[in-house]
Amino acid sequence: MAGAGLEGVVAAATALSLVDGERGELVIAGYPVEELALQATFEETTWLLWNGRLPSSAELTAFHAALASERQLPAAAEALLRDCARARVEPMDALRMAAGTLSLASDEPHAIVARMPTIVAAYARLLQGREPVPSDSRLGHAANFLFMLRGETPDAEQVRGLETYLNTVVDHGLNASTFTARVIISTGSDLVSAVTGAIGALKGPLHGGAPGPALQMVFEIGEASRAEAVLRAKIEAGDKLMGFGHRVYKVRDPRADVLAKAAERMFTRTGDMSLYTLARSVEAQAIRLLEEYKPGRRLQTNVEFYTALLLHGLSLDVPLFTPVFAMSRVTGWIAHALEQRRTNRIIRPQSEYVGPRGLTWVPLSER
Amino acid sequence: MAGAGLEGVVAAATALSLVDGERGELVIAGYPVEELALQATFEETTWLLWNGRLPSSAELTAFHAALASERQLPAAAEALLRDCARARVEPMDALRMAAGTLSLASDEPHAIVARMPTIVAAYARLLQGREPVPSDSRLGHAANFLFMLRGETPDAEQVRGLETYLNTVVDHGLNASTFTARVIISTGSDLVSAVTGAIGALKGPLHGGAPGPALQMVFEIGEASRAEAVLRAKIEAGDKLMGFGHRVYKVRDPRADVLAKAAERMFTRTGDMSLYTLARSVEAQAIRLLEEYKPGRRLQTNVEFYTALLLHGLSLDVPLFTPVFAMSRVTGWIAHALEQRRTNRIIRPQSEYVGPRGLTWVPLSER
Repeated sequence: MAGAGLEGVVAAATALSLVDGERGELVIAGYPVEELALQATFEETTWLLWNGRLPSSAELTAFHAALASERQLPAAAEALLRDCARARVEPMDALRMAAGTLSLASDEPHAIVARMPTIVAAYARLLQGREPVPSDSRLGHAANFLFMLRGETPDAEQVRGLETYLNTVVDHGLNASTFTARVIISTGSDLVSAVTGAIGALKGPLHGGAPGPALQMVFEIGEASRAEAVLRAKIEAGDKLMGFGHRVYKVRDPRADVLAKAAERMFTRTGDMSLYTLARSVEAQAIRLLEEYKPGRRLQTNVEFYTALLLHGLSLDVPLFTPVFAMSRVTGWIAHALEQRRTNRIIRPQSEYVGPRGLTWVPLSER
Repeated sequence: MAGAGLEGVVAAATALSLVDGERGELVIAGYPVEELALQATFEETTWLLWNGRLPSSAELTAFHAALASERQLPAAAEALLRDCARARVEPMDALRMAAGTLSLASDEPHAIVARMPTIVAAYARLLQGREPVPSDSRLGHAANFLFMLRGETPDAEQVRGLETYLNTVVDHGLNASTFTARVIISTGSDLVSAVTGAIGALKGPLHGGAPGPALQMVFEIGEASRAEAVLRAKIEAGDKLMGFGHRVYKVRDPRADVLAKAAERMFTRTGDMSLYTLARSVEAQAIRLLEEYKPGRRLQTNVEFYTALLLHGLSLDVPLFTPVFAMSRVTGWIAHALEQRRTNRIIRPQSEYVGPRGLTWVPLSER
């Protein structure tokens, strides 16, 4: 049997992203993540992943317009979100259900990406007992999401912060949700089916569900002078420090650096700088103490720590963190689905049978 | 890189089913398919797969009652099906969307299985412009499905035919939809997410989508005396004979025999025996001619040929064939999801990066 979880088994060739855990590098369609994420709009990153190159000015203008024209939800999706809000369904389940209905609108790649923020923003408002805000077609993808969430045009630095986040987590090798999308599309199925399956996988706490607790720890510490004592107590109690360590990256997660830069810039210009300063202080103490208690384990800050800080700085509630992750990753899921289609063979591994054989039927009366 | 499509890679250990393609054997939780499928009710088969043994009489009575009490759809699911019917959405897409909403009802295994026939029957009627029929809690799972579809209590031989079909296709190793369910659940996600993803995979024509054409060929031939000429013409034109040949089974697909027996019994007692006789005659000619034209390829009747005949004998339209397949396979998906949970490790294979590296950002004005 292959390693549990298919670890180390190569299941696809891809030109979309390279995760080099030993060197701490992430390449997105040829660009180091730190080169791309801080400069591109999310529309540029999406175009890049789907076309293998950056768009020209004319191509980008057309792509903006195409996305902006496909933001409205089918009536069935909005009705379903209202039912979900009444039942207080978790945002990831509501997103999965509403995204599943997008077959009623369009199965085109850009139409699916365009509608994801509409679902997330509408559901966030419905959960608060407020009405959804229609999109503003003059705004780009990231800015319009914040507009639909808040009902007012967002600050440019906040848009840049969100844009950088969306670019940073857009693709990451064959993670479980991306692999799910490739397995589904490999049967000849459609993009909405692949994306719906991937959202279901991303929901799992072993995959997309953990940025909340990292921030919770920072809040619990409260001020820099308490960081060492609180962290020592946690480590000595055997608690895992949320936001540190990654299955793949053995050095610092390159996404953490990009998000730290984005957070610094955003907090400097628009936010609560004391929270940013506290977080950096907690991070430094945590890395120092992890090396002290677990020498050689090389536990470093992961993407979740700064994801939490950045999204909190955008006034997003913790239950929205994973749905906003999905708003970005949907571009990667679709890119992988399109890539899988080009050289497709159905993905169908083997299982090893470990049960009995040759049993004979026993009628109910004799059981 | 592993074989394309992970062919030959063992991705899980399972006690649920064994597909032995060389020997033409299928074992379901210890029982040869021909031992189990013709005798069990679908409730017994479901219990068997989820518990590893056949239920006692008391256990089965309780399980019947539990399933029968969970058949009603959430209001949101029925509203969504009405929207789908107005838009003439394919039944598999409608099933995926409505199944996705079952989080609004219950994530319990039996509650998901119980509601699948309700969705399929309601949507079949809505597509015909008729109102859904409420379930009859006195009827078993298979009988009640036919009741909800037709509005009248079905003949016992037809129920037995459907029951045998549902038992026969309930599980089949790590096919693409079952594997999808395992990948999704491996992240720590929920059963409705896993089932919704699996339905999306089953929809693909390379997986669950091909029983229709096999029957179409029988109708096209029309009478036994024309079989040889029509089949020769197809083979000489390079057409694939639908219903023959399988990726895994190199001898006769054991499910074809079981379904042939079930069809013979059902048609003898309730149906159009001339269609059954014609189908057997077409099958015999097809196997003879395939051996003549493609000696040594061992192309045999597969499960689709008799699936089509049996489901047609139940007056099901071709677009319902794959949704009815899903009504059965959902038991297997859930069994695999529960099995995956017991020894879980997240399923996350590797990819091989074949794209460029080290590109540098070019501002939009310079592209």
